[in-house]
This record gives sequence, C-alpha cells and structure tokens, in this order.
Amino acid sequence: MNTQDHISQAYNDELEEVRSKVLTMGGLVEDHFQGATKALLKGDTELASDIAKYDYKVNALEVEIDDDCTSLIARRQPTAGDLRNVFAVIKIVTDLERIGDESEKIASFVTELSVDTKSMTIYNSLKSMIKTAREILSAALDCYARLDAKQALEVAKLDEDLDSNFNDLKRTLITYLIEDVKNIEDFIRVMWCARSIERVGDHAKNICQYVVYVAHGNDIRHITDQKD
Amino acid sequence: MNTQDHISQAYNDELEEVRSKVLTMGGLVEDHFQGATKALLKGDTELASDIAKYDYKVNALEVEIDDDCTSLIARRQPTAGDLRNVFAVIKIVTDLERIGDESEKIASFVTELSVDTKSMTIYNSLKSMIKTAREILSAALDCYARLDAKQALEVAKLDEDLDSNFNDLKRTLITYLIEDVKNIEDFIRVMWCARSIERVGDHAKNICQYVVYVAHGNDIRHITDQKD
Repeated sequence: MNTQDHISQAYNDELEEVRSKVLTMGGLVEDHFQGATKALLKGDTELASDIAKYDYKVNALEVEIDDDCTSLIARRQPTAGDLRNVFAVIKIVTDLERIGDESEKIASFVTELSVDTKSMTIYNSLKSMIKTAREILSAALDCYARLDAKQALEVAKLDEDLDSNFNDLKRTLITYLIEDVKNIEDFIRVMWCARSIERVGDHAKNICQYVVYVAHGNDIRHITDQKD
Repeated sequence: MNTQDHISQAYNDELEEVRSKVLTMGGLVEDHFQGATKALLKGDTELASDIAKYDYKVNALEVEIDDDCTSLIARRQPTAGDLRNVFAVIKIVTDLERIGDESEKIASFVTELSVDTKSMTIYNSLKSMIKTAREILSAALDCYARLDAKQALEVAKLDEDLDSNFNDLKRTLITYLIEDVKNIEDFIRVMWCARSIERVGDHAKNICQYVVYVAHGNDIRHITDQKD
C-alpha cells in the first residue's frame, strides 16, 4: 500500500489485503463495464442479461471492504499516510460500486433495445465514447494500483473529452430523432446508456483524485469551483 | 452525536461539531434542490442561475467535513459507535455532494428551456415527482438529525414510489414526444431533469441506510441483491 514502515508485519499485511481487495473490485467493475458496453455495441442480449445478474458480487465486495476499513481503523488506529490510504479506500469503493450500477443500467437497456445499435446513425460516436470511457477507467485503476499521482492528474483531465463526446452525441441523437421519430424509444434508451457511460468517466475521475490525495495529501476535488 | 460517554468533553464537542456541519451541509443541499425544482416548475431562470452558481459552497463543506473526519480519526482513534458515526459521515457527505450536483444540473437545464414546464403535458406528473423527492430528502435528513433508524427504514422504502413515478413520466414523455416532435429538445431537457430528481431520491435512500448503520451497526445496503 506504499505504506509507512510498521513494526508489525501483520499490520502491513492487513493494509495490503484491503488494497488488494479494492483492486479485485476494480477488476470486476471493469469487466462489467466492458461486458455491458460490448453487449450494447454488438446487440448481445445474452451477455447483457449476465451482466445485470452479477452486480451483487460488486455490491458484496463494497460491504466487505468497508467492514475491513472500519475494523482496521478500530484495531490499528492508522495515522498520516496509512489513514489517507484507508480514507481513500472508503471513498473509492463507493465510486466502484456506482460504476457497477451504471454497467447494470446499460445492460438492462440493451435487453430492451429493439434494433442493433450498429444500424443506428450514432453508432460510431457511441463506439468512440465507449472506447474513451474504457480507457479512462482502465487508466484510473492502473494509477491506483501504482499510486501514480502524476499520471492520475493526466487521466482525470481525459474526462473532459468524454463529457464533450457525450454532448456531441446528445446533439446528434436529437437531430436524428426529429428525422426518425418512429425509433424514438430506442434512441432514448441509447441516450440513457450514453449518460451512464459519461457517469463512469466521472467516477473514474474521482478515483484519480483520491490517488493524488493518497500520494500527496492534497485534496484536489472541486479545485476549479467558482468563488464569490 | 448520540455518542458514547467520553471522559473528554472536548472529544464530545468535536463529534458534535462534525455532525452539526453535516446537518448544515444537508440544509444547504436541501435548499439548492428546493430552489432548482422550484425554478423548473416556475420557469424562473434567474433563480436557476443562482443555484448553479453556488454549488461550490456545498463542495467546500464536503472537503472540510472529510478533513475533520480524518483529523478526528487520527487524534481521537474512535471505536464502536463513534467510529460508525464518523464512517457514516464520510459516506453521507458524498451523497449530499451528489445531490448538490444533481440540483446544479436541473438548474442548468432550466436556463436552457424555451418553454415553461407549466405549458407541458407532463407538468402535473413532474410536480408530483418533485413533491415526493423533496419529502424523501427532507425526511432522510430528519432521520439523520434524530438518528431514527426505524423511521429511516420507512423513508428508504419511499424511494420505490419515486422510481415508479419516474418510469411513468418517461413513458408519458415518449408518447407526447411522438405526437409533438417540434418540442423535442425541451422534452429531453425535462427528461434529464426528471432523471436528476430520481437520483436525488437514491442518494436520500443511501443516507437512510447509513442512519440504520449508525444506530444498529447493521449494513442494510444491497440486502435485496440476488445470490447465485
């Protein structure tokens, strides 16, 4: 956990175990997001049903890791860098769980779609948006694995590209909706999916911000907020 | 904080102060949500602009309370009920901040609407959905203020009504969209707003679940999840 040196090897092991569980949870939500978006692009309703069914594994890990964190605080009374690590875990698992939720939502919409997204005019924009979101999520988890604050700052910036992709896609969808009103329900389902994909980027950005916090102790959330 | 008895009055005061800040933050996001939804129903773009401008106050409180929590853990090494209280605060402020975000999003859409929602066919459904969401949020904060776990369980259930309202509204919107395609952009803006209102209900439900956790130590998140 890039931890401080502890006299107790057991304490080190415990911190490492929590961190390792977060990485397992990260891998799981990454798989779910990959699967849900693959199902969306391929029109694979079977895969989509599977994804929607297994979100409980992510949820169970969230509860387990939170328990580990409170138990670790109570027994080990972490301070300084260790405490920042544990604090970041408590926050990050919430973001990971929400990524799981968004993947589940995408998967549910896929099972309801009456056409393949491949036949839709916005297919390429959707594909490109998914590619960006997958890259951001994967890079964010990688930054957490290596506690690489410098890279985390770069990755967090990529979320702006995703937001801009999303806005473009929304505009395009509306244009096509006006021209092709009979497919409105499918267009709206795709719009909800796009929204979920954009949210995954937001959560990945949050993870990056916590990596910076662990490494440097700086809280960089909301740094661009307006002041009066 | 319904805290354990401590020899140190200063420790009690510190726990009370954190709790009091959470209630202040709760009051602030409640005001923002009230304001944003009022602006949506009245077509009040001036009010909407104000709401969008002041979200930074909520964000600043989030960072401040998180700091207080890590400082309190490091110096006071809370255990048992006190630790549950602090853990719940760390989780609840994230939900409160997201409610602030959703209110800001609603406010932004209001400034873009080209018609009053009052003239829209879904006005009454929207009004009713907003009423339910406000009640859930207010009741959830009240449960936290009184640490009333029994009531929190009841309030968490109300979120299902809101989800069902949202699904009805989505269906109605789609029907009217097909009939009145020229207003499509406004309909879609209202749909995003409805989605944000539904998310506020989800966050309020999360707060209720943390109240139960503080009071009884039971983690009731995801209890209805499927098992294989």
